[in-house]
Formats: sequence, structure tokens, C-alpha cells
Amino acid sequence: MLRIGVIGYGYWGPNIVRNFSVIDGASVVAVCDKNPISLERVKKNHPDMSVTPDSREITSSPDIDIVTVITPVSTHYELAREALLNGKHVFVEKPFTASAAEAEELIEIAEKKNLKIMVDHTFLFTSAVKKIKQIIDEDVLGDLYYYDSTRVNLGLFQHDINVIWDLAPHDFSIMDYLIRHKPLAVAATGRAHINSKEDIAYIMVYFTNNIIAHINVNWLSPVKLRTTLIGGEKKMLVWNDVDADEKIKIYDRGVEITSSEGIYNLLVNYRSGDMWAPKVDQSEALRLETQYFVNCIQKNETPFNDGMAGLRIVKMLEACDESLKNNGKMVEI
Amino acid sequence: MLRIGVIGYGYWGPNIVRNFSVIDGASVVAVCDKNPISLERVKKNHPDMSVTPDSREITSSPDIDIVTVITPVSTHYELAREALLNGKHVFVEKPFTASAAEAEELIEIAEKKNLKIMVDHTFLFTSAVKKIKQIIDEDVLGDLYYYDSTRVNLGLFQHDINVIWDLAPHDFSIMDYLIRHKPLAVAATGRAHINSKEDIAYIMVYFTNNIIAHINVNWLSPVKLRTTLIGGEKKMLVWNDVDADEKIKIYDRGVEITSSEGIYNLLVNYRSGDMWAPKVDQSEALRLETQYFVNCIQKNETPFNDGMAGLRIVKMLEACDESLKNNGKMVEI
Amino acid sequence: MLRIGVIGYGYWGPNIVRNFSVIDGASVVAVCDKNPISLERVKKNHPDMSVTPDSREITSSPDIDIVTVITPVSTHYELAREALLNGKHVFVEKPFTASAAEAEELIEIAEKKNLKIMVDHTFLFTSAVKKIKQIIDEDVLGDLYYYDSTRVNLGLFQHDINVIWDLAPHDFSIMDYLIRHKPLAVAATGRAHINSKEDIAYIMVYFTNNIIAHINVNWLSPVKLRTTLIGGEKKMLVWNDVDADEKIKIYDRGVEITSSEGIYNLLVNYRSGDMWAPKVDQSEALRLETQYFVNCIQKNETPFNDGMAGLRIVKMLEACDESLKNNGKMVEI
Amino acid sequence: MLRIGVIGYGYWGPNIVRNFSVIDGASVVAVCDKNPISLERVKKNHPDMSVTPDSREITSSPDIDIVTVITPVSTHYELAREALLNGKHVFVEKPFTASAAEAEELIEIAEKKNLKIMVDHTFLFTSAVKKIKQIIDEDVLGDLYYYDSTRVNLGLFQHDINVIWDLAPHDFSIMDYLIRHKPLAVAATGRAHINSKEDIAYIMVYFTNNIIAHINVNWLSPVKLRTTLIGGEKKMLVWNDVDADEKIKIYDRGVEITSSEGIYNLLVNYRSGDMWAPKVDQSEALRLETQYFVNCIQKNETPFNDGMAGLRIVKMLEACDESLKNNGKMVEI
Repeated sequence: MLRIGVIGYGYWGPNIVRNFSVIDGASVVAVCDKNPISLERVKKNHPDMSVTPDSREITSSPDIDIVTVITPVSTHYELAREALLNGKHVFVEKPFTASAAEAEELIEIAEKKNLKIMVDHTFLFTSAVKKIKQIIDEDVLGDLYYYDSTRVNLGLFQHDINVIWDLAPHDFSIMDYLIRHKPLAVAATGRAHINSKEDIAYIMVYFTNNIIAHINVNWLSPVKLRTTLIGGEKKMLVWNDVDADEKIKIYDRGVEITSSEGIYNLLVNYRSGDMWAPKVDQSEALRLETQYFVNCIQKNETPFNDGMAGLRIVKMLEACDESLKNNGKMVEI
Repeated sequence: MLRIGVIGYGYWGPNIVRNFSVIDGASVVAVCDKNPISLERVKKNHPDMSVTPDSREITSSPDIDIVTVITPVSTHYELAREALLNGKHVFVEKPFTASAAEAEELIEIAEKKNLKIMVDHTFLFTSAVKKIKQIIDEDVLGDLYYYDSTRVNLGLFQHDINVIWDLAPHDFSIMDYLIRHKPLAVAATGRAHINSKEDIAYIMVYFTNNIIAHINVNWLSPVKLRTTLIGGEKKMLVWNDVDADEKIKIYDRGVEITSSEGIYNLLVNYRSGDMWAPKVDQSEALRLETQYFVNCIQKNETPFNDGMAGLRIVKMLEACDESLKNNGKMVEI
Repeated sequence: MLRIGVIGYGYWGPNIVRNFSVIDGASVVAVCDKNPISLERVKKNHPDMSVTPDSREITSSPDIDIVTVITPVSTHYELAREALLNGKHVFVEKPFTASAAEAEELIEIAEKKNLKIMVDHTFLFTSAVKKIKQIIDEDVLGDLYYYDSTRVNLGLFQHDINVIWDLAPHDFSIMDYLIRHKPLAVAATGRAHINSKEDIAYIMVYFTNNIIAHINVNWLSPVKLRTTLIGGEKKMLVWNDVDADEKIKIYDRGVEITSSEGIYNLLVNYRSGDMWAPKVDQSEALRLETQYFVNCIQKNETPFNDGMAGLRIVKMLEACDESLKNNGKMVEI
Repeated sequence: MLRIGVIGYGYWGPNIVRNFSVIDGASVVAVCDKNPISLERVKKNHPDMSVTPDSREITSSPDIDIVTVITPVSTHYELAREALLNGKHVFVEKPFTASAAEAEELIEIAEKKNLKIMVDHTFLFTSAVKKIKQIIDEDVLGDLYYYDSTRVNLGLFQHDINVIWDLAPHDFSIMDYLIRHKPLAVAATGRAHINSKEDIAYIMVYFTNNIIAHINVNWLSPVKLRTTLIGGEKKMLVWNDVDADEKIKIYDRGVEITSSEGIYNLLVNYRSGDMWAPKVDQSEALRLETQYFVNCIQKNETPFNDGMAGLRIVKMLEACDESLKNNGKMVEI
């Protein structure tokens, strides 16, 4: 039985505690949060767990095997480093760290000490993303043309990061998982209206094979939109994550170049066929992810969403920062 | 009775002919198209109009007062110039011309000869845009934060222009009409997948007062989306032009900065109130626009969507072209 | 060339004139309406047609082969009878007549004189209904369980009929076309709120093979709904006629009985699989219908939506009237 | 601190346990279920509660003040009676009992012993229903014309009741709460396709003041619909309970009779104005309801959803049964 200590019991922490509590082979033994109100909530919901405001009680406890870090990004490196140095496996909320250098150091420590790192890219464990991966891998869409994601809603403003660091890791990790081709460069632009952090931003990612990605992230939208279009040579896909019943739709639509032309003729033909919405299960992604981490540790296997995967996403975020500072200049990765 | 000659009877021309036929004070007397099949269609639908494949028969006819140019963009300048030089008022499909220089020359000719130019920015005559203008002018939204438009569908590919020149004039003209602040710069990026013209593009426009605009145009989308979010300090608006019944929704939602903070407290408060969908009439925009042009000529008034308005949009398009060629570099206007 | 006279140029008449004008083998030569304003509209839109306020000029004209009756239901019988007696084929707006007796007399006259009757059940010529027919005929749905239609909107109130006679003929004719089993009985109930005619009504139709149909018609709904659920043993179908893009969705969902068990166990299993939305063409139904009528006359064939089909629908409507008067009593057909 | 014993830990029981656990002034001390698997789940989720397969250990325990009966309808009477006779307050899942006679006996016992009965009509505690009540009470809609509810989905089949007893209590209790006028009669019709219980049914309810209600309940629908139209003289309301964001929409639409007429003129005018969607809170109804029950007991107040309210709904259900057996005959209440 792997014993888990959770640091951070704010918005997302309760979900982490709940899921690690019910899976096989693990139990949550201690929860840390600086906020006494949060600790009261832990006591009420989970009277069997110990609580503490001091993260060192978690990272250095001899009774803990896994430390989960569900705190603001700026603190990930310090907390994860302490845990690793004390021989704990770590499960870190996304984005992995506040810089690539931090991520690289954590990966190095974990390798030396043969410890596992998992970065919480929960979307990779949803039925929707797994179904899309299957569809792409089976070449249903053909060569990809573009990935276009709109991920907007009102808040939640983060105090230490901008909207890109908050929302874009979802798309970066999904693209990292779905698209076989490599990102070559990013460009990002945005504006801050409420405080000094960008609350609206638009990101371009340029891949090999002429694939283009676009991500629209916004904390100031009156409506919540979670729509991703994936265009391919053969078919096209729309993933609407706020649609409970028909999250994924595959359209037999596309364009084909025709030979004959002339200035007053269109150069292309359109194909408009059926639409198909595969069944998408409702199983909870976080449960699958937490179980997967425990299994990886038990079998001494490297999770696919490991520190290296987390690092790739942080590098994208750093490139976005550089582009933001340079008026949306294209920045190579 | 103003006599109208229409050049171009392809996709949009029939709507122009039909609307100029039914309004007061005007009649369509002749239609020109290079394609004999189009001319056959004219004869069937409008047996009373003369037809010709030769545009000079329209531009030089002494029996014509207004020439409407509904042809590919590359031909606008030549046709409109001939018409103006022959003393005709001109109604030109958007975008006005293929370059700012062309537009400026046409404006100059028209001024010298006291002729009217109207550029067909039809959206400005829709009930939806007029209602949004009223809402903004009454300061319902407060200071604007952003304008974010998604304008995507499958085709129609244009043979002589890219997707920006095809779809972005709608948003450029709407912003020109709605937003009191000035555009300072644009940045555009895109990719061509089917032929040499960009079929997907993303445009940023930076205004004074920290307003940011974003336009997503795409000829390769499996679904038709026409959604514009307009975020303001006080309220936020969503315009969904493919929703027949509730095109405009105004949300009493927003964000307010609070004073107290601390590293683990959020810095902002959220307001989530009612939504309101004003009635939007169904009157045909093109009928209103064509009637307005005839009225302007009769009263010797300058239409607000005149050559100058058309020129402002062409300058935006030219700046997009320059940005496209420079990897999305920000280009001042 | 069959020469057509149209009686009635109100809400639907202009569509009839327009479609009969463009199809092959026919031309509209005269239009009748009692309202002088309507006749002015005819003159403006179709200067080549003669107009008259006197229906006898249409029904008795030696220059007319087909009379179309697009007037209030109470006048159908008289006008169609005159036309038939004068040797004209007739195309009659739905519902065919105000009573079964009237319909039977018209059918008898037409048979004696070898003339064609077509009743305008336009929905049977839509791509949506034809696609549903194909799906049912190919046994995709399996044995049918139910047909459940919601057909509600605000107005248009009819002055001489109630909401059942106005809207239910659509569903009655569609069921007559789709369902191989016979209607055994109907029951109808409703209420009049605005004048003496029911403006809200609910209709049950009981078929052989345990199929049940339900039709919800309402002139007092704030929203327009056109949704039909068709449940079958194998699959289920939703037809949403106000959805421009995905009118028909077929769900691989259903229920299967499991070996019975104990009081605290459910007795059934659920199947929840993929959804599929076949492409539905956008061709205009009325054009196909009018062309089909002309073809039937030319080839001396009986249209499937002939007087007998119209009579079957009128019998359903009469049974509804009887049920309405008897508090929703089940009335055999 | 009121001590609660819960009988029934199937589909709904876990929600009851969870909510009674967190409210003020109460704690769940024991849970009963005949199914050992259910009891295992209780032990895992709530290690502090005692469990038993024997309902008499709950109904007769001296350590229990409130018994909640969350079992199949056929068992409600027996279990609630035992609890009341042993001096316990009872909270009973809807529908209250399997017959009016049963309900009346329970009410009588409770009155004699000064105990509280609450019937779990959870919808009355939702923000949506409370907002609609406020809107109707403020006469926003004017005189009501109709209440039309569609409540369909795939399953869950109940083993001891038909679809009316399963789903219609929601609408019956909502109408009982919203509509000041009295139900005079009901009519119900339906069909059983899977087993001997009706799985599809349509219900009419006739009220004083010419108000008509219609309820469409169906266990065999491929899609989940929860749409209620409420038409009034002044305004009309649509409540879509599966829409997360805009559950309630109020339309400034309606019909007005005009004086002038004539056979070819319409008799009515249409008003089509703005739509307004009030903010509807997301608070959990069951939490409010359970807290309200505890408060009523503490203050010795009668809850509005008491045994009498439950009885009124059971009487409607019994009338439906009688109508079902008589081909949809209208049955007075």
C-alpha cells in the first residue's frame, strides 16, 4: 500500500485526495495546506487523515511514499525537489514547473534516485481525448491540416501566472499526445485588462508537415467554450467538451482540388457527407490517472505523462512568454 | 428613376440584381457577365433586362446611371474606374480594391466628378450589427476589452484572393463601424493547404485604449461558425449569427478587482447575472443597403460606407499581407 | 406545355406560382385572388401572368389545364369541384377538404373524367422525410415503438380551422407515408384561448402492432419546435427540422430485457452506442412536388399523394374533431 | 442533533446520506439495505455509520429520530408506518405511497403523534423552480394558458411502477407548487413495449380557469429532454433543465386579438419582443431540502411538501391509472 501526502487543498486538491483515496494500492495519509480553513475541510471530509500547515512534514515524512504537489506553479519546483531528495515519488499539478531549468533539475534528481514523476495532464485520461487519439492513429482524418482550440470562460484568475500558463498546458499536452509531428515554433500575443497578467491570449504553434495550431485562451469570456476543431485531409473532427452527450463529431467533409480551371471557375470541389458521433464513456479521468501512477510505481514503469512530458509543455510556455514580450514574434522551440 | 447596370452575375450578383430591382427610385436595366450560362439565367429570371458579355457596354452606356461591380477583386479597380470616368456612380463588392493605391485613385476620380462610391459591406445593414452598435453607443458594455470573431466554414475558395481578403473584410468593416478607438497595428498568420492561397488565417488587431481584436478565418472547417464575443468592462456580448432566433446575447457578467489579497487569495471577484437577448429584426440587409445608396445619390449625400470606408478596410488587408509575409510580425497601420 | 391557373395568392400561393413557373413542361398563365393587393403583387413579380379576382375565370378557362387551389380549407371543395367538372387537373393545398364526404365526391368526379388530383403534402418531398423513409424501409430502426412529434410555434392563426387542421396534416401524411401499419383510432384534446378555435391540442394515434403516435400542436408557443422522435426496437431516430445542418440523427440506443431476477434488480439492460447523422440534401421540396405532378399528368400516372391519400388524412382530422367534442374519447377510424 | 436512519442505499440513497450528513443539526447514524453490496459501499464511504439489512433495526431504534425511506414505492407505506408508530419523523422518497389510502393513513398517524412527514419532491427546492414560482407570483406571465412538459430519456426502468409513477410526480408536484388554480381532471394514455408496465405515456391535466397541462413521459427516448413550456397571456417561459447555463428563458411574445376581420384577414396580432434569461443559482436542491426538513422539526413547523402535498400527487397518479385502464378517459379528481 503506497502512502500519499497531498500538499495543497484549494480548488483542485480535494479531487486529488478523493481519487487517490479510492483507487487500489494507495491511501492518502496526510494533507498539507497553509490555509487553516482548508485544513478544517479536510478534517470534516476525511477524519482519518492527518493535517498540517507545514509542507516539510509531508516531504520529509518517513511514512509517505508519494508526494502530490497541488499548489501554485511558482512553488512546484521547491516542493517537488524536497520530496524527491527525500526519496518520494512526486505527482505534480500542471504546468510542471515555472521554468524549463527547474523541470530539468527535477527530472535529473528523479532519475538518479530512481523515482517517478507524473505531471497531472488530466485531459490525456479523458475518454474524449483517448477516442480522438484512436481516430487519428487509425488515420481516419488523414494528414492533419490544423488543430484549433477555443478555451475561454470567466476566470478563474490565477495570482501568479497568466492565462497562457493556466489554460494552454491543456492544449499543449493534448497536441503533444495526439500529433506525431514536432512543434517547430510558437507565437503568442495577448493583453492584460484586470491586473498585470495577460487575461486574453492567442497562441500559434507551427509543426512540421505544414500543420498549424491555434489556441484561444481567455479569462474574460461571458460564456464557457471548449471547442476544438481538428481538420484533416480526409475527414474533420469537432470536439465540444461542454456537450455532455455528443462531445466528438467526425464529419465526412473536405475539399479536393480539381484539374480544370479558368479565371471564373472555382479551383476546388467540396465533399459534404455524413456526420458520426462515437460513444464517449463518462468515466472519471482523474481516477484513471491516479490509478495509472500507482500502477507505474508498483511495476517500476515510466508514465507517458512523466517529467519529460511536463518539460516539453514548459518549454512551449517559455517560448510563449518570449513571444509575448516581443509583440508576437515567432519563437523557435 | 436611376438606371442600374450590374457587372458580374455569379454567386452574389443575383442578390444584387434582385434587390436593386425592387427598391424605390431605381431599376436594373442591364447585366453583364463573361459566362454565357450566367447570362441565360438572367434572361430567364429577368426577361426585361438586357444582357451582355462586354463590360464596356455597361460602363459606357448613356442609359446607365449606376454601375455595380460584383466581380473578382482583381477586376474592381479597372471596372469601377471606367464607370467613374464615364460619369457613373459605382457600387462595388467588398473588398473595395486589390490595393490602397487603387482605392485612393477611385476616390479621387469620384470626388472630382462628384460621383458616389458605395462599398458593399452588407453586414453594416443587418439588424444584428445595428443593434450591437446601439448597445455599444449607449455604453451598455462599458469600456471595450476585446472583439473576438470566429468566421469559419467549408469553402467557398476564391481563386484570386486568400481567406483573409475573402472573410476578414466583414470583421474589419464591422469593427470600423462599432469601435470608436483606432486600429494601430495588425498581425496575421496562416497556412495554405489546398493551393497557394492561405485557407486558414488568424489575425490580431491592436487598437488604442488597450482594445484587442482577434479574427479566426478558415475555409477548411467542417462546421459553419459565425460567433463574435465582445467583452466590456460592464457587460459582455455574444453575437452568434447562425442562430436564427437569438443572435445577440448580452451577459451581465464581469470581473472586478478587489483590494485585499495575499499570495493564496484570488485577486478578483466575479459577477454572474442575467442574460438578455434583444429582439433582432429579420429585414434583409441588402435591400436596406441598396435603397440607402439610391437615396444618397438622390439627396447628394455621402454614404457612411463610401470609398473612404472601403479604403480603410483595404489598408487593413494590405497590412495583413505584409504581416503574413513576415511570420506574423506586427505591422502598423 | 401544361397551362396552370393558381387560385389563392396569400401566404403559400407565391411559392406555388414560383415553383410551377420554373419546372419543365408547365407554365403559370393566370392567378386569382379576391384581395386586390395580392393581385398587385402578382403583377409586379410576374408581369407576364394574367390576374383576376374571379375564380370562375380560372376554373372555366379553356386555356388552363391545371387548377391549383391554395385557399382556405372551407373553399377547397367548391373550387376543386368546379375545376374538375370543367376538365381540369387539380392541385389542392392540404388539408384536402373540410370533410371526408367532400373528398370522396371530388375523387369520384376525377375518376370519371380521368383527371389527376394531387394534395400538397409538401413534407413528403423533403430530403429529410425521404431519408427517414429509406431508413425505416431498410429496417434500420427495427419494429417501431412510437412516433412522437412536437410541432409548435407562435401563430399563424387560421381563421376557419383549428390548430389540428392546420398543423396535424403534416404529421398524419408523414405517418401515412412512413408507417406500414394501420391507424386504428385517434384521440384528441385541446383548448382555445384566443378565439373559439383550439390553439393548443394533443393527439394520440393508435396503430396496429402496438405502435403509438403522439402529436403536440400549439399556436401559442414562444419558440418554434419541430422535433420528431421515432423509437424502434433496434435503433432510435430524432428528426429536428429546425436544425439546418443535422436534421436527422440515428442513435444506436435501446433497451433489452434480461433474464428476470429479484425485486431489487432492474429488469432491463441499456444499449448506448454511437450516433450517426446522414447527409440531408437541401433541395426544395415544392419544386420536386410540382415537377412530379406535371410528370404524372404527362405520363397518365397516379401520384402517391393523390386524392385518396388526401382523404385518409381528412378522415383522421374528422376523427380528431369527434374526439375533441367528447373530451378526448378514443375514436376508431 | 437529530439522528437519522436511512433505509435504501440504491440509486438515490447515497445522495440522501451525503446531504443529511453535511447539514447543520443532524447526523446520519445508520443505513439499511437488503443488498450486501450496497452495505459494503456504505462502509467504505462512511465508516462511521452502522449498517444493517433489517429495516426494523432502523424503524425501532431508540437512537434514531428521523427515518428516511428511499426504497421502491410499494414498500413506502409499510416502512413509514413502522417508523411513525415508533415515534420517528419520516422523509419519504416520491411518490409518497402506492395509494391515496396508504397516504391518508400515514398522515393520520403522524398527526396523532405530532410527527413530521416530508415527501422528497426535490425539484421544488431547485433554483429553477423557485425562480419560476417567483416569476409567476409576480404576474410576469399574466394569466396562464398552459404547462407543457417533455420528460423523456432512456430508462431507468422501475420494476414496480410504470413511467407515469416514476416521472410524472415531478411535474405534478411542480404544478401543485406553481399553479394557483385547481386540477379538475386528468387523462392518461400509454403503451408498454418492454414489459407489462407502460414505458411511454402522455398525460393531460385540466385546471380551473381553462388552464391545460400536458406531460410527455418516456423511458424509450434516445435523447434526454427536460423541457417545459409555460404559456401565459402576457409572456411565455421555457425551462430547459438540461441546459447548464440558461435554464429559464422568458419571452416577451404573445398573441392579441384585433377587431377588424373579414374572411381573408387574420384575426390576431403577434408580439415578438426580447428574451430574458435570469440567473439561476447552482446550489444543490437536496441540501436545501434536507436542511429545511431538519429546521421544520426543530421549530415544530409543517413543511410545505408534507404528507398532504404527497397525497395530492398520489391522487393524481391514481386518477392516471384509472384513465389508462379506460383508454384515456377523462377522470375527475
